[in-house]
Amino acid sequence: MGNIDVPAAWEARAEIPRKIRDDSLLKVQPPLRGMPAVPPQNSQTLPNLVLTPRELELTQGYSANELLAKLKTKELSSEELTRAFLRRAAVAQLATNCLTELMWDDAIRRARYLDSLPEPIGPLHGLPISVKEHQGTKGENQQANGSYVAYVGKHQGSTLILDILWDAGCVYFARTTQPQTLMHLETDSNIYGRTVNPYNRNLTSGGSSGGESALIGLRGSVLGLGGDIGGSIRVPAAHCGIYGFKPSAQRLPIAGGTDHMVGRESILATNGPMATDRDSLELFMNIVIASEPWRLEPAIRFQPWVPYHFSRPLKVAVQWWDGVVKPHPPMIRALSEVSEACRSAGMHVVDWNCEDLDHRKGWEILSALYFPDGAKEVLGLLEKAGEPVLPLTKWITTAQPTVKDLDLHEMWRLCTERDAFRTKYARHWTNTMNEDGHEVDVILCPPYFGAASPHEMSRYWGYSSIWNLLDYPAAVFPVTNVDPSIDKVVDYQPINHEDRFVHDLYDPDTYAGAPISLQIVGRRHRDEKVLAALKAIEHAMGRK
Amino acid sequence: MGNIDVPAAWEARAEIPRKIRDDSLLKVQPPLRGMPAVPPQNSQTLPNLVLTPRELELTQGYSANELLAKLKTKELSSEELTRAFLRRAAVAQLATNCLTELMWDDAIRRARYLDSLPEPIGPLHGLPISVKEHQGTKGENQQANGSYVAYVGKHQGSTLILDILWDAGCVYFARTTQPQTLMHLETDSNIYGRTVNPYNRNLTSGGSSGGESALIGLRGSVLGLGGDIGGSIRVPAAHCGIYGFKPSAQRLPIAGGTDHMVGRESILATNGPMATDRDSLELFMNIVIASEPWRLEPAIRFQPWVPYHFSRPLKVAVQWWDGVVKPHPPMIRALSEVSEACRSAGMHVVDWNCEDLDHRKGWEILSALYFPDGAKEVLGLLEKAGEPVLPLTKWITTAQPTVKDLDLHEMWRLCTERDAFRTKYARHWTNTMNEDGHEVDVILCPPYFGAASPHEMSRYWGYSSIWNLLDYPAAVFPVTNVDPSIDKVVDYQPINHEDRFVHDLYDPDTYAGAPISLQIVGRRHRDEKVLAALKAIEHAMGRK
Repeated sequence: MGNIDVPAAWEARAEIPRKIRDDSLLKVQPPLRGMPAVPPQNSQTLPNLVLTPRELELTQGYSANELLAKLKTKELSSEELTRAFLRRAAVAQLATNCLTELMWDDAIRRARYLDSLPEPIGPLHGLPISVKEHQGTKGENQQANGSYVAYVGKHQGSTLILDILWDAGCVYFARTTQPQTLMHLETDSNIYGRTVNPYNRNLTSGGSSGGESALIGLRGSVLGLGGDIGGSIRVPAAHCGIYGFKPSAQRLPIAGGTDHMVGRESILATNGPMATDRDSLELFMNIVIASEPWRLEPAIRFQPWVPYHFSRPLKVAVQWWDGVVKPHPPMIRALSEVSEACRSAGMHVVDWNCEDLDHRKGWEILSALYFPDGAKEVLGLLEKAGEPVLPLTKWITTAQPTVKDLDLHEMWRLCTERDAFRTKYARHWTNTMNEDGHEVDVILCPPYFGAASPHEMSRYWGYSSIWNLLDYPAAVFPVTNVDPSIDKVVDYQPINHEDRFVHDLYDPDTYAGAPISLQIVGRRHRDEKVLAALKAIEHAMGRK
Repeated sequence: MGNIDVPAAWEARAEIPRKIRDDSLLKVQPPLRGMPAVPPQNSQTLPNLVLTPRELELTQGYSANELLAKLKTKELSSEELTRAFLRRAAVAQLATNCLTELMWDDAIRRARYLDSLPEPIGPLHGLPISVKEHQGTKGENQQANGSYVAYVGKHQGSTLILDILWDAGCVYFARTTQPQTLMHLETDSNIYGRTVNPYNRNLTSGGSSGGESALIGLRGSVLGLGGDIGGSIRVPAAHCGIYGFKPSAQRLPIAGGTDHMVGRESILATNGPMATDRDSLELFMNIVIASEPWRLEPAIRFQPWVPYHFSRPLKVAVQWWDGVVKPHPPMIRALSEVSEACRSAGMHVVDWNCEDLDHRKGWEILSALYFPDGAKEVLGLLEKAGEPVLPLTKWITTAQPTVKDLDLHEMWRLCTERDAFRTKYARHWTNTMNEDGHEVDVILCPPYFGAASPHEMSRYWGYSSIWNLLDYPAAVFPVTNVDPSIDKVVDYQPINHEDRFVHDLYDPDTYAGAPISLQIVGRRHRDEKVLAALKAIEHAMGRK
């Protein structure tokens, strides 16, 4: 492929991975029949038109744990299951444009191999898993571009986390889209184009793990691997009505994927699971950490996974808003419904007042930390290939007044500000025990200001990114869907520019039927506690 | 005090904290009598000339745990104990120049207060503790200069770690010296002058926590607080025949002391205990971590202290040398004696061959990480005050070819090199299980190339600093003393410049009687295991 000397060549270069993707979809057997010429606004029922009853049963009838139980007893073969998910993923691609590659041959070969073994090789034996493209791959096509045209053709094999899941017996079958720079809360790139929401084409599937969310949101996969440095697991999961978990940084292996600004450590991305059900989050964490990843990737903390059990009713703090931007009415309704369910179940529900905690200041620090070189490296990668800078790339880089080219001393001052912010927040949390001797267990809050936004409108990250700045673990879970008959526009005077922008975005009909999810946040390194709280809160909601 | 405009004023400014120190020593009651006009070469028996039999008993007859037991039952009052250590610390100051302040009034007031209470307030109730000056203070004199003339008069109150020990009931009674920039493996500054070894005035007490080591090495304190980013706890402890422990970074609180380059996170310093006995290390760790410091200082990992117990004989890897510099004969003898004792006790003793691990490369990375601004900030602080740059400051900054003023992208590349080095090392360690299914538990190695060096000669850090680069926990413990009758010069051809320098430093008579200590190193975050191994190895040596 060689270097690109003439910027105009970017389109030809971007065509290469698209062709790999398109060719991979041609392998689907039997070919998809029954797809409408124009995809419907809401894709949720599309698989019913195309897939067999058995495929529908296998892809939407069971959780990952249920499938694993059937695989273990050989009641179900990995090959049959993998073929069903391959075909459903192809439907999801046609509906939402969520794939960068369907790993037809590799996946079936792997599934057959696993089926040939007398015993399961590990706890994920035979389960198909999807992976965000920039993570790399175990298959024959050892490339990953991270949606950078400059990286097209870049060799990128496996990484430790892919190896661990592989050794646990999974089948990699689908690679998924991510946005330019990996730094949008939507998913659009010059290589793969735009990924849309499986509930509504006019809305985003979220980002940056928005290929995963669209795919899993249409049950084209039950378990996938995403990454998060500002909301990139949680926001797409929330937008597509699935479960997602951003653990504390350096709990899961992350080294080796295709990324920019490698070596920057002032703000850390983390990998994490995205899934159709709650238990898959814990399954994923448990399996990866049981492999003792710190023995091979020393940045990972020595911290075995120890499931948490509450010994008394939870103390839940509800963050109704972040002091900067008012959430949309359906989000407020979701908070009301869930907090009421918690209260009814005997939990101690209090308010999380964060006006004094200054989330706006948090964003100023974080956005500066994202690009402390003034975004030179990232924009340079785009320029090198000659690819256009997309609007949301501009928004998160040059349009942020905080993004500046810092020298080391300025960087150290910024890190000191970050640490002071973290300390203030930690002490605030600790002080919640003053009133009754019990500290708040988790914060219940919006993952985003509302349902998935219309395309290009995801321009407020505060509800997810604050927890990256603080390095607090956070899970999202689906709660309800926008119902125009109840989620009406409320009379509210925005208090600032961002608040006005977000307020003006709301109109019930735009979001009708879109999933509304909530977020559960714990203290740093208390990942297990967050998942235990998610379980307790879903039980309080009457879920199993 | 104000700003210094005329460089020549530095001497007047440096006089101020010296006067505070000297005035504080005048408070000693009864005044010290019997001190020789000229301190002896070896100060070990000096206290016998000056202190009462009861003072000698209290300061050298018991471990911290034994003293705490007596304090708890009120068999011993904190005031009596504190007065004994205050007087012995004053002797240590006259012998080694290890103090920046004797906290006579504060300590006695605190001790009396603790004695007045019906019950102990915590697990350190009544125990006098010494602290390296730059850590700050709980007393009335709320200043710390970190041995920078520019920082003379700088307000510096308490820090979290000081508060934790205070809340556990300790008595702060002595503040100790550190070198210019805190970055020598000796202790010399323009403010306080040179601290010398309590076994031999011609040798260094080590650094940067060399005031602590001289004080504790003369039993002017049983437990002190030091800090380590390249050997600053372990090397002085080793040189003075005491115990020291450098935990993994971010296990103990560290924020808030007087230091330079705040916000730099590419290489992290840690606090740690220095003590007259082994059990005090675990006591210290246990108490600080039981306070859950992560709840107030969020950079600290959530990792409760869980004492480790070996379920089978240890697998100990002996690092006979680091591939760069050959240790002096008494150090090799110590390794032989202790590894033989381990073998006799049934442990599996193997060699730690680190030629392939390239410790020289490790030093190149680490020395660059110490001063990634080309030492501009540190040298600027010296220049601002007009104080002379000491030889060992020059050696660790401008004389290191790796010390350069980096931009952010160069810094990220350096961090990537660091991470690759750490990964290679971690995988090497993991692979030690290939031969017999058991990974090496700990490495037994020199903490330094030999006994304490003559002044200004501490110009090879590799044996201690490699574990800072890797962030591996490491403890040092006394093993033997240099014996010219057996530790003779050996015939050896140095293989490089540093090796030649170190080789030429050896001459048995220079070091006669000086302590020789060894170091036990564990994997990252396995702090408890290192202390368990220290106990097992001392048991193997026939110690209690």
